[in-house]
Amino acid sequence: MMVRISEIEINPQRLEEYKAILKREAEASVRLEPGVIAIFPMFQRDNPAQVRILEIYSDQQAYQSHLKTEHFLKYKTATLHMVKSLKLVDMDALDMEAATRIFVKLKSHPF
Amino acid sequence: MMVRISEIEINPQRLEEYKAILKREAEASVRLEPGVIAIFPMFQRDNPAQVRILEIYSDQQAYQSHLKTEHFLKYKTATLHMVKSLKLVDMDALDMEAATRIFVKLKSHPF
Repeated sequence: MMVRISEIEINPQRLEEYKAILKREAEASVRLEPGVIAIFPMFQRDNPAQVRILEIYSDQQAYQSHLKTEHFLKYKTATLHMVKSLKLVDMDALDMEAATRIFVKLKSHPF
Repeated sequence: MMVRISEIEINPQRLEEYKAILKREAEASVRLEPGVIAIFPMFQRDNPAQVRILEIYSDQQAYQSHLKTEHFLKYKTATLHMVKSLKLVDMDALDMEAATRIFVKLKSHPF
Protein backbone atom coordinates (compact mmCIF):
# COMPACT_ATOMS: atom_id res chain seq x y z
CA MET A 1 0.00 0.00 0.00
CA MET A 2 1.31 3.47 -0.89
CA VAL A 3 -0.18 6.56 0.80
CA ARG A 4 0.60 10.14 -0.22
CA ILE A 5 -0.63 13.66 0.36
CA SER A 6 0.05 15.87 -2.65
CA GLU A 7 0.35 19.54 -1.66
CA ILE A 8 -0.47 21.73 -4.65
CA GLU A 9 -0.81 25.49 -4.99
CA ILE A 10 -2.93 26.62 -7.91
CA ASN A 11 -3.06 29.97 -9.68
CA PRO A 12 -6.28 31.35 -8.06
CA GLN A 13 -7.51 32.71 -11.40
CA ARG A 14 -7.49 29.20 -12.86
CA LEU A 15 -8.95 27.42 -9.84
CA GLU A 16 -12.42 26.60 -11.18
CA GLU A 17 -10.94 25.29 -14.42
CA TYR A 18 -8.40 23.24 -12.44
CA LYS A 19 -11.13 21.74 -10.23
CA ALA A 20 -13.13 20.52 -13.23
CA ILE A 21 -10.08 18.85 -14.78
CA LEU A 22 -8.96 17.28 -11.48
CA LYS A 23 -12.44 15.93 -10.78
CA ARG A 24 -12.51 14.16 -14.14
CA GLU A 25 -9.01 12.76 -13.65
CA ALA A 26 -9.67 11.49 -10.10
CA GLU A 27 -12.93 9.85 -11.14
CA ALA A 28 -11.37 8.14 -14.18
CA SER A 29 -8.35 6.91 -12.19
CA VAL A 30 -10.42 5.24 -9.48
CA ARG A 31 -12.90 3.82 -12.00
CA LEU A 32 -10.42 2.50 -14.58
CA GLU A 33 -7.33 1.52 -12.55
CA PRO A 34 -7.65 -1.42 -10.14
CA GLY A 35 -4.49 -0.28 -8.29
CA VAL A 36 -5.72 3.27 -7.63
CA ILE A 37 -7.59 2.90 -4.32
CA ALA A 38 -8.20 6.59 -3.67
CA ILE A 39 -7.67 10.00 -5.19
CA PHE A 40 -9.51 12.29 -2.78
CA PRO A 41 -8.99 16.01 -3.50
CA MET A 42 -9.56 18.71 -0.88
CA PHE A 43 -9.18 22.50 -0.78
CA GLN A 44 -8.27 24.65 2.22
CA ARG A 45 -11.42 26.52 3.18
CA ASP A 46 -9.51 29.73 4.03
CA ASN A 47 -7.33 29.49 0.94
CA PRO A 48 -8.91 27.29 -1.74
CA ALA A 49 -5.91 27.69 -4.04
CA GLN A 50 -4.12 25.37 -1.58
CA VAL A 51 -5.08 21.88 -2.71
CA ARG A 52 -4.38 18.66 -0.82
CA ILE A 53 -4.97 15.28 -2.44
CA LEU A 54 -5.04 12.07 -0.41
CA GLU A 55 -3.80 9.35 -2.76
CA ILE A 56 -3.77 5.62 -2.00
CA TYR A 57 -2.26 3.10 -4.45
CA SER A 58 -2.16 -0.66 -3.95
CA ASP A 59 1.64 -0.60 -4.54
CA GLN A 60 4.48 1.27 -6.29
CA GLN A 61 3.79 -0.58 -9.54
CA ALA A 62 0.18 0.63 -9.56
CA TYR A 63 1.47 4.19 -9.10
CA GLN A 64 4.00 3.88 -11.94
CA SER A 65 1.29 2.49 -14.17
CA HIS A 66 -1.04 5.37 -13.19
CA LEU A 67 1.56 7.91 -14.38
CA LYS A 68 1.38 6.42 -17.89
CA THR A 69 -2.41 6.45 -18.31
CA GLU A 70 -4.08 8.68 -20.86
CA HIS A 71 -6.27 10.39 -18.24
CA PHE A 72 -3.30 11.23 -15.99
CA LEU A 73 -1.19 12.56 -18.87
CA LYS A 74 -4.14 14.64 -20.07
CA TYR A 75 -4.57 16.12 -16.56
CA LYS A 76 -0.83 16.78 -16.23
CA THR A 77 -0.59 18.57 -19.57
CA ALA A 78 -3.81 20.57 -19.13
CA THR A 79 -2.97 21.81 -15.61
CA LEU A 80 0.80 22.38 -15.91
CA HIS A 81 0.46 26.15 -16.36
CA MET A 82 -2.12 26.43 -13.53
CA VAL A 83 0.14 24.87 -10.89
CA LYS A 84 2.33 27.31 -8.91
CA SER A 85 3.95 24.64 -6.72
CA LEU A 86 3.74 20.88 -6.21
CA LYS A 87 5.05 18.80 -3.32
CA LEU A 88 4.55 15.03 -3.17
CA VAL A 89 4.66 13.93 0.48
CA ASP A 90 4.86 10.17 1.06
CA MET A 91 3.04 9.06 4.19
CA ASP A 92 2.73 5.99 6.39
CA ALA A 93 -0.77 5.25 7.65
CA LEU A 94 -0.94 4.60 11.39
CA ASP A 95 -3.63 1.98 10.93
CA MET A 96 -4.60 0.91 7.44
CA GLU A 97 -7.58 -1.03 8.76
CA ALA A 98 -8.97 2.28 9.99
CA ALA A 99 -9.47 3.23 6.35
CA THR A 100 -11.87 0.39 5.79
CA ARG A 101 -13.89 1.43 8.84
CA ILE A 102 -14.08 5.01 7.51
CA PHE A 103 -15.70 3.97 4.36
CA VAL A 104 -18.22 1.69 6.01
CA LYS A 105 -19.55 4.76 7.80
CA LEU A 106 -19.45 6.95 4.71
CA LYS A 107 -21.74 4.54 2.92
CA SER A 108 -24.56 5.26 5.33
CA HIS A 109 -24.26 9.04 4.81
CA PRO A 110 -25.97 10.49 1.76
CA PHE A 111 -24.21 13.42 0.02
CA MET B 1 -20.16 17.12 6.31
CA MET B 2 -17.04 18.62 7.88
CA VAL B 3 -13.59 17.73 6.51
CA ARG B 4 -10.32 18.70 8.18
CA ILE B 5 -6.62 17.93 8.00
CA SER B 6 -4.94 18.34 11.38
CA GLU B 7 -1.23 19.16 11.03
CA ILE B 8 0.60 18.13 14.19
CA GLU B 9 4.28 18.10 15.07
CA ILE B 10 5.25 15.67 17.82
CA ASN B 11 8.30 15.60 20.05
CA PRO B 12 10.28 12.84 18.23
CA GLN B 13 11.29 11.25 21.52
CA ARG B 14 7.64 10.69 22.41
CA LEU B 15 6.49 9.53 18.97
CA GLU B 16 5.94 5.82 19.66
CA GLU B 17 4.02 6.63 22.82
CA TYR B 18 1.96 9.23 20.94
CA LYS B 19 1.14 6.75 18.15
CA ALA B 20 -0.23 4.19 20.60
CA ILE B 21 -2.47 6.78 22.28
CA LEU B 22 -3.68 8.24 18.97
CA LYS B 23 -4.46 4.80 17.57
CA ARG B 24 -6.67 4.00 20.54
CA GLU B 25 -8.42 7.39 20.36
CA ALA B 26 -9.08 7.17 16.60
CA GLU B 27 -10.42 3.63 16.87
CA ALA B 28 -12.74 4.49 19.79
CA SER B 29 -14.03 7.66 18.09
CA VAL B 30 -15.03 5.89 14.89
CA ARG B 31 -16.48 2.90 16.75
CA LEU B 32 -18.45 4.79 19.41
CA GLU B 33 -19.51 8.04 17.71
CA PRO B 34 -22.00 7.80 14.84
CA GLY B 35 -21.03 11.33 13.67
CA VAL B 36 -17.30 10.60 13.44
CA ILE B 37 -16.97 9.29 9.90
CA ALA B 38 -13.16 9.17 9.75
CA ILE B 39 -10.10 9.78 11.85
CA PHE B 40 -7.30 8.57 9.62
CA PRO B 41 -3.80 9.35 10.98
CA MET B 42 -0.71 9.49 8.75
CA PHE B 43 2.98 10.25 9.30
CA GLN B 44 5.38 11.84 6.84
CA ARG B 45 7.73 9.08 5.75
CA ASP B 46 10.78 11.41 5.69
CA ASN B 47 9.84 13.04 8.99
CA PRO B 48 7.50 10.84 11.04
CA ALA B 49 7.19 13.48 13.78
CA GLN B 50 5.05 15.38 11.26
CA VAL B 51 1.59 13.91 11.67
CA ARG B 52 -1.39 14.56 9.42
CA ILE B 53 -4.88 13.38 10.39
CA LEU B 54 -7.73 13.32 7.89
CA GLU B 55 -10.88 13.89 9.93
CA ILE B 56 -14.45 13.67 8.60
CA TYR B 57 -17.45 14.50 10.79
CA SER B 58 -21.09 14.31 9.73
CA ASP B 59 -21.59 17.94 10.83
CA GLN B 60 -20.35 20.64 13.25
CA GLN B 61 -22.54 19.25 16.03
CA ALA B 62 -20.90 15.82 15.73
CA TYR B 63 -17.50 17.51 16.04
CA GLN B 64 -18.54 19.53 19.11
CA SER B 65 -19.88 16.36 20.69
CA HIS B 66 -16.61 14.51 19.86
CA LEU B 67 -14.61 17.14 21.78
CA LYS B 68 -16.54 16.25 24.95
CA THR B 69 -16.10 12.47 24.82
CA GLU B 70 -14.07 10.66 27.45
CA HIS B 71 -11.74 9.09 24.85
CA PHE B 72 -10.97 12.45 23.22
CA LEU B 73 -10.34 14.22 26.53
CA LYS B 74 -8.09 11.34 27.62
CA TYR B 75 -6.09 11.62 24.37
CA LYS B 76 -5.87 15.41 24.67
CA THR B 77 -4.60 15.31 28.24
CA ALA B 78 -2.19 12.42 27.69
CA THR B 79 -0.57 13.93 24.56
CA LEU B 80 -0.52 17.63 25.47
CA HIS B 81 3.16 17.63 26.45
CA MET B 82 4.15 15.56 23.37
CA VAL B 83 2.71 18.04 20.85
CA LYS B 84 5.12 20.74 19.62
CA SER B 85 2.60 22.41 17.30
CA LEU B 86 -0.98 21.91 16.16
CA LYS B 87 -2.78 23.44 13.20
CA LEU B 88 -6.41 22.59 12.38
CA VAL B 89 -7.00 23.16 8.67
CA ASP B 90 -10.63 23.06 7.53
CA MET B 91 -11.06 21.66 4.04
CA ASP B 92 -13.72 21.36 1.36
CA ALA B 93 -13.84 18.05 -0.48
CA LEU B 94 -13.94 18.38 -4.27
CA ASP B 95 -16.21 15.37 -4.61
CA MET B 96 -17.64 13.74 -1.51
CA GLU B 97 -18.99 10.84 -3.56
CA ALA B 98 -15.40 9.95 -4.40
CA ALA B 99 -14.96 8.90 -0.79
CA THR B 100 -17.61 6.23 -1.11
CA ARG B 101 -15.86 4.81 -4.17
CA ILE B 102 -12.64 4.55 -2.14
CA PHE B 103 -14.44 2.29 0.30
CA VAL B 104 -15.56 -0.14 -2.36
CA LYS B 105 -11.97 -0.60 -3.55
CA LEU B 106 -10.42 -0.79 -0.10
CA LYS B 107 -12.72 -3.66 0.79
CA SER B 108 -11.13 -5.86 -1.85
CA HIS B 109 -7.58 -5.17 -0.55
CA PRO B 110 -6.43 -7.16 2.46
CA PHE B 111 -4.10 -5.37 4.91
